[in-house]
Amino acid sequence: MLAEIITIGDEILIGQTVDTNSAWLGNELNKRGIELERISSIRDTPDAITTALHEARQRAEIILLTGGLGPTNDDITKQTLVDYFDTELEKSDEALNNIKERFNARGIDLLQINIDQALVPANCIAIPNSKGTAPGMWFVEDGIIYVSMPGVPYEMKAMMSEFVFPRLEALNIADQIVHQTITVVNIPESVLSHKVSQIEEDLPEHIKLAFLPHLNLVRMRLTAKSSSHSTAALNDQLSAYFDQIKEVIGPSWFDGDKSMAEIIGQMLIEQKSSLGSIESCTGGYMAHCFTEIPGSSAYFHGSYVTYSNQFKIDLIGVDEELFTTVGSVSEEVAKQMAAKGRLKLGVDYCIAATGVAGPTGATEYKPIGLVYIGLAKPNGEVVVTENQFKGSRMQVIERTAYMAMEMLRQALMSEISQSEQTPALK
Amino acid sequence: MLAEIITIGDEILIGQTVDTNSAWLGNELNKRGIELERISSIRDTPDAITTALHEARQRAEIILLTGGLGPTNDDITKQTLVDYFDTELEKSDEALNNIKERFNARGIDLLQINIDQALVPANCIAIPNSKGTAPGMWFVEDGIIYVSMPGVPYEMKAMMSEFVFPRLEALNIADQIVHQTITVVNIPESVLSHKVSQIEEDLPEHIKLAFLPHLNLVRMRLTAKSSSHSTAALNDQLSAYFDQIKEVIGPSWFDGDKSMAEIIGQMLIEQKSSLGSIESCTGGYMAHCFTEIPGSSAYFHGSYVTYSNQFKIDLIGVDEELFTTVGSVSEEVAKQMAAKGRLKLGVDYCIAATGVAGPTGATEYKPIGLVYIGLAKPNGEVVVTENQFKGSRMQVIERTAYMAMEMLRQALMSEISQSEQTPALK
Repeated sequence: MLAEIITIGDEILIGQTVDTNSAWLGNELNKRGIELERISSIRDTPDAITTALHEARQRAEIILLTGGLGPTNDDITKQTLVDYFDTELEKSDEALNNIKERFNARGIDLLQINIDQALVPANCIAIPNSKGTAPGMWFVEDGIIYVSMPGVPYEMKAMMSEFVFPRLEALNIADQIVHQTITVVNIPESVLSHKVSQIEEDLPEHIKLAFLPHLNLVRMRLTAKSSSHSTAALNDQLSAYFDQIKEVIGPSWFDGDKSMAEIIGQMLIEQKSSLGSIESCTGGYMAHCFTEIPGSSAYFHGSYVTYSNQFKIDLIGVDEELFTTVGSVSEEVAKQMAAKGRLKLGVDYCIAATGVAGPTGATEYKPIGLVYIGLAKPNGEVVVTENQFKGSRMQVIERTAYMAMEMLRQALMSEISQSEQTPALK
Repeated sequence: MLAEIITIGDEILIGQTVDTNSAWLGNELNKRGIELERISSIRDTPDAITTALHEARQRAEIILLTGGLGPTNDDITKQTLVDYFDTELEKSDEALNNIKERFNARGIDLLQINIDQALVPANCIAIPNSKGTAPGMWFVEDGIIYVSMPGVPYEMKAMMSEFVFPRLEALNIADQIVHQTITVVNIPESVLSHKVSQIEEDLPEHIKLAFLPHLNLVRMRLTAKSSSHSTAALNDQLSAYFDQIKEVIGPSWFDGDKSMAEIIGQMLIEQKSSLGSIESCTGGYMAHCFTEIPGSSAYFHGSYVTYSNQFKIDLIGVDEELFTTVGSVSEEVAKQMAAKGRLKLGVDYCIAATGVAGPTGATEYKPIGLVYIGLAKPNGEVVVTENQFKGSRMQVIERTAYMAMEMLRQALMSEISQSEQTPALK
C-alpha cells in the first residue's frame, strides 16, 4: 500500500515554513505499514494542484493533501477539488455546527466566509475538525483514497488520529514494515560501510540497510518489508542482523535512533552521575537539549543562564576583574563558570559556554563564532576548548551545544575505560 | 526563472529526518529572484529519481537534487545520473585531492569506496565540496541546469553559497521577486481577511496577498513579481499597500515575519524593561526562545533552570513545606518561583513554569500536561495560570513557553495602554 503527500502553499516553497507535517505523516504512516512513495510541496494554484493529483494517482493508492482550506482568498484547494472531481459544493450541517460553536465560544460574530467553510464537495465525506473550523474531506474514486486536510499542524494531526487512521486501519490494506536503528558514535560512514559490507551483501531481498550520518554520529537503519511475515518475525530477523553488525563494529553503538543528549543521558544514568550547565551564549539551549528527553530529571539537575556579566559575577562567583582583563569571552571565564558552577549546582559534571553567537557583538580579537567551552569533572579537573564556529546565531548555539556534549561524552567514556580497564573509544 | 528541488532518501519519507534543506534553499533562491515551482521528496531508487527528473524538466529550468551521494551502497544518485544522461564516470583529480586531504587530516586510511567518490559523470562540472568528501555535479542539457549535491545540510549549503549561486547570478536570468510580511497578533484569520477584502480585491495582477496563521499570530505576506519593475519600485508598491492594510486593522501589527519572542523583545526594549525566567518543566526552553534572538541581551538577563525541587528551595527560596503540602506542580510554587525569582534575578518581569511535561511523572491529581505558569510584574504583582496542555513532551514544553509569552505580551500591552491612555488590545 503506497501513499503520497501533497502539501499546498507558497510558504513552504519560499522557505517561510519548514514542512514538519510531512515528517509526522511519514512516521505515522510507516508505523502502520503504509509506505510513502513521494512528498510533493506545490504552489497554491489550481494548475499545480491538478497536475500533482494526476501524477500521484499513477503511483499511489492513498493521496493526502494538506493546506489551502482556510477561509481566505488564497485558499483554493476545495474549489480545485470540486473541479477535479467534476462535482459541486453542498452544505455540511455538522461542519456548520462546529464552526458556530467555535465562534460562539470566542464571542466573535460569524462572517459569510466562515459560513462558506461548511460547504464541501458533494462526493466527499466531511471529516470533523476538532481543533479548528475547516472540515477535512475524504474522497474515494477509482479505488484511490484522497484526503484533504488543513495545513495547520494540530488540526491535521487531530484529523489523522481521530478519523483517517481508524478508517485506513479498518480497510486492512497495509504490508508489514519494520525498522530498527542503531546509533554509532565516531566511526566515519565509509569505514562503517566497509566493516559491514559482507553482512550487507548477504541481506535478503526484503531487508535494506541505510546509513544516516549527522556530525559524528551515524545512524544505521535496517528496514524489512513483507506481506508474508509477521511483524514479530521481521523484528527477529532484523535483530539477528544487528547482532552480526554489532559484533563487527565494536563497542561504540547505542540501540535506537539516539541523539547525542540521549546517549550522554544513558551514560550518566549508568555511571550514577549528575549534570548541570552554566550558559552564556547558549542561553539555555544546552539545558533544553537535555531536559527535552523524558526521564532527564534523573541526571540533569539544573542550570544558570548567566546572560549578563553581572550574573556571572553575582550568581556564579566568577572573578570580577576577569571582565576588564581578559573579557567575558575567554578561556579563564569559561573555566571559572564550569568549576564554580559545578560547586554551586552541586553536580558531578558541569558544562559551561561563553562566546559570541552573533550577528553583533564581535570585536577585533573576538570574532563571531568564537566560543570557549568548559567542562568540570567529578574530580574538580576542568578542561576548556577554544572553538571558532561558523554559521548563523542559531548554528553557533547548536554547534556549541554539540561540542560541549562531545567533550562530556569523551570524559564519560574515559571514566568507563578507567573503571573497567578496557580501551577507550577514539 | 523556475526551479524545482528533488530530495532523495527514504529518511525523509519515513519521517526520520525533517526536510530543512528545502526550506533553506527556497528562501535563498527566492531572495535571488528564482521561484520554486515544486519540492519533491522521493525514495532512493533509480526509478523514482528518473521519474522525478522527467517530470521536473517539463516545468523548471533549474533542478536541484540533494542526497544519495555518500560512499555507501544505498547512495545511488550518481549512477542514476550517469544512466539518465547516458554517459560514464571519470575521475575528478580535484575531488580526489580533496578526499585525500580530508582523510589525511583525520589520520584515517583511504578505502576504495572513498576513492570512488572522486568519480563523476563525464558530462558534468564537478562542484568542490569544502565541508566533506562527495563532490557535487553541475550539468546543463537542453538549456536546463541540473545540480546534484549531498544531503548533509552544511555540505549542501556551502556548495550553493560558494559555487551554485555565483554561477546562477552570473547567468542573470531571474525575475524580480519581492516579499513583505507583517505579523498580526490576536485577530483571527477570517476577521483579518474580511477587514482587508477591498484592498485585496484592488491589488494589481503582479501582487499577491497570503495569510499564514500560527497559534494567535497571523502573518500577512504581500508578494510582488515582475520582470519590468525594479526591486526598489516593487518594494515601494508593497509598502503603500501595507500602509492601507495597517490603516484598517488597527494597532495590533508588527513589521516583519516575527515570532512571539521577537514581538515581546521589541516591546521590552520600547518599555526599557528586563526579563528573566525560572524554569522547571520547560528546562531552559523559555530562555532559549528569547536568547536565540539577536540583541536579546538588551533585555533578557538570565534564568535559573531549577529542574530539581532542591534547587527550587536552595536557589530561589521557594518554601520547602510547599513540596509536601501542595507539591511542586502547584499554583503556589509557580507563584513563588516567579516572585522570588524576579527579586533574585533583579529583573522587571519574571516568567516561571512548573508542570508535568510527561511522558512519565503523572499522578492521580497531576496529569501529564498540567502546567502552572507564573508571571511576576514590575510592581511585584504575580499572576498564575493553570493550564492543561495536550501532546508530546516537546509539545507541552512549547505550549508552556507560548502561553508564558502570551501572558507577558498582555501584561506589556496593558502597561502601554495605562501609560498612553489608549484602549488595550483584546
